[in-house]
Amino acid sequence: MARYRLLLEYDGTGFRGWQRQRAGIVTVQGVLEEGLQRLFGHEVTLIGAGRTDTGVHARGQVAHFDAQKAREGWVILRALNVLTPETVTVLAVDAVDAAFHARFSAVYREYLFRIVAGRSAMPALDRRRVWHHPRPLRVDWMESAAQALLGTHDFSAFRASFCQSKEPVKTMSRMEVRQVGEEIHLRVGANGFLQHMVRNIVGTLSLIGRGEWPVEAMGEILASRDRRRAGPTVPPWGLYLEKVLYPGQVQQNGQG
Amino acid sequence: MARYRLLLEYDGTGFRGWQRQRAGIVTVQGVLEEGLQRLFGHEVTLIGAGRTDTGVHARGQVAHFDAQKAREGWVILRALNVLTPETVTVLAVDAVDAAFHARFSAVYREYLFRIVAGRSAMPALDRRRVWHHPRPLRVDWMESAAQALLGTHDFSAFRASFCQSKEPVKTMSRMEVRQVGEEIHLRVGANGFLQHMVRNIVGTLSLIGRGEWPVEAMGEILASRDRRRAGPTVPPWGLYLEKVLYPGQVQQNGQG
Repeated sequence: MARYRLLLEYDGTGFRGWQRQRAGIVTVQGVLEEGLQRLFGHEVTLIGAGRTDTGVHARGQVAHFDAQKAREGWVILRALNVLTPETVTVLAVDAVDAAFHARFSAVYREYLFRIVAGRSAMPALDRRRVWHHPRPLRVDWMESAAQALLGTHDFSAFRASFCQSKEPVKTMSRMEVRQVGEEIHLRVGANGFLQHMVRNIVGTLSLIGRGEWPVEAMGEILASRDRRRAGPTVPPWGLYLEKVLYPGQVQQNGQG
Repeated sequence: MARYRLLLEYDGTGFRGWQRQRAGIVTVQGVLEEGLQRLFGHEVTLIGAGRTDTGVHARGQVAHFDAQKAREGWVILRALNVLTPETVTVLAVDAVDAAFHARFSAVYREYLFRIVAGRSAMPALDRRRVWHHPRPLRVDWMESAAQALLGTHDFSAFRASFCQSKEPVKTMSRMEVRQVGEEIHLRVGANGFLQHMVRNIVGTLSLIGRGEWPVEAMGEILASRDRRRAGPTVPPWGLYLEKVLYPGQVQQNGQG
């Protein structure tokens, strides 16, 4: 038995999310497990660090699996990149210790959310890569409001009704809202996330950014733990799982 | 009669280039002319500044057309964005003088070519947005070599065999090769371009960037006016028509 860790990039547009579903439904886990099965000749279960939703992208998803026979990492990488669609790419393969678990060992996850605001025409080139908000947004208001989320809180106000997580308390250690060229980038890092949490935070910040709610609303909504108080869930295609860190790995800020 | 200028962005991936072809072949000119015909109720011919090839993108293509009856620019913009696929977006519509011609009045055209080099895995998210060169490229060598192209020259060495242009002499006023994050960006501006000219220049620079040809080769290839001396034609999907300028408009450098 040999355990391997995969570092993955994917375009979420053509996938019904990460998690394997019934036959005929294309998911990221599904296509990778099929590739691994063809490579190793036995069934393989792939565990991902984050179960991204339909349309959500990843530039640094991490997953692990067990194989009955060890193979060189580069052989797995090359074979898997041939055996899977071009919309998913294996960036790295590493042999890991049997104690490593992509989901339970993870200590930090970081997401990026990209917004194009204040441009009336839909972006043609980035149409499934960014969320298009036709009206301008005040980045400074959004940035101020977002700071209320830093630290350890019960994030139930930003949780999907069908979220299965047992623990709504998470520790948010990074929260930045920045103008980057023509886009607004929200970068958020925590030890874990609830379902739709980033998209519900962005929906709430967008109402603050267009002046419908005051900057102080963010802290009140968080404290209420009431999903009905928060803003709408924004579309998935602006969201990217950027990185996942494990004990011993250090968080790098900046370009990230 | 009223003449209008359109500013256009499009994702070249799903189009067989700019130029209208026979029925059933999807082109940028074709879908826009169909939309304009539905809007105005008569046949419309749209003239583009640059006839981009299959797979080539645009962030600043310019085109003009004549309508029998004048309409407000914003009405045309909104209607056309509804009547055309989401892979093409009208960014601006302006009423122009009858002397304006998108192709013949243009005095400057600028293209961007994006390369991801030195990364073995294919990019999943940008797979039809950048050219993937698995081996590293020396940006400094490419930048030095590229300078030989600045000025007025006969660019026949970089011209497709089937190019129909009568004039192979062009004046290149901008030529930059820069590392931008994980990508190499080549930005080139001239009064006009021959068919495949940018892609043949990039193919030649890539051989210099990986050390197969010396930096001095560029000037010799240009002087030879012999297509067989230059490098291969690289794929279209890294190429973007960035902007087109007309008399009275000033070229802005920097971010472009």
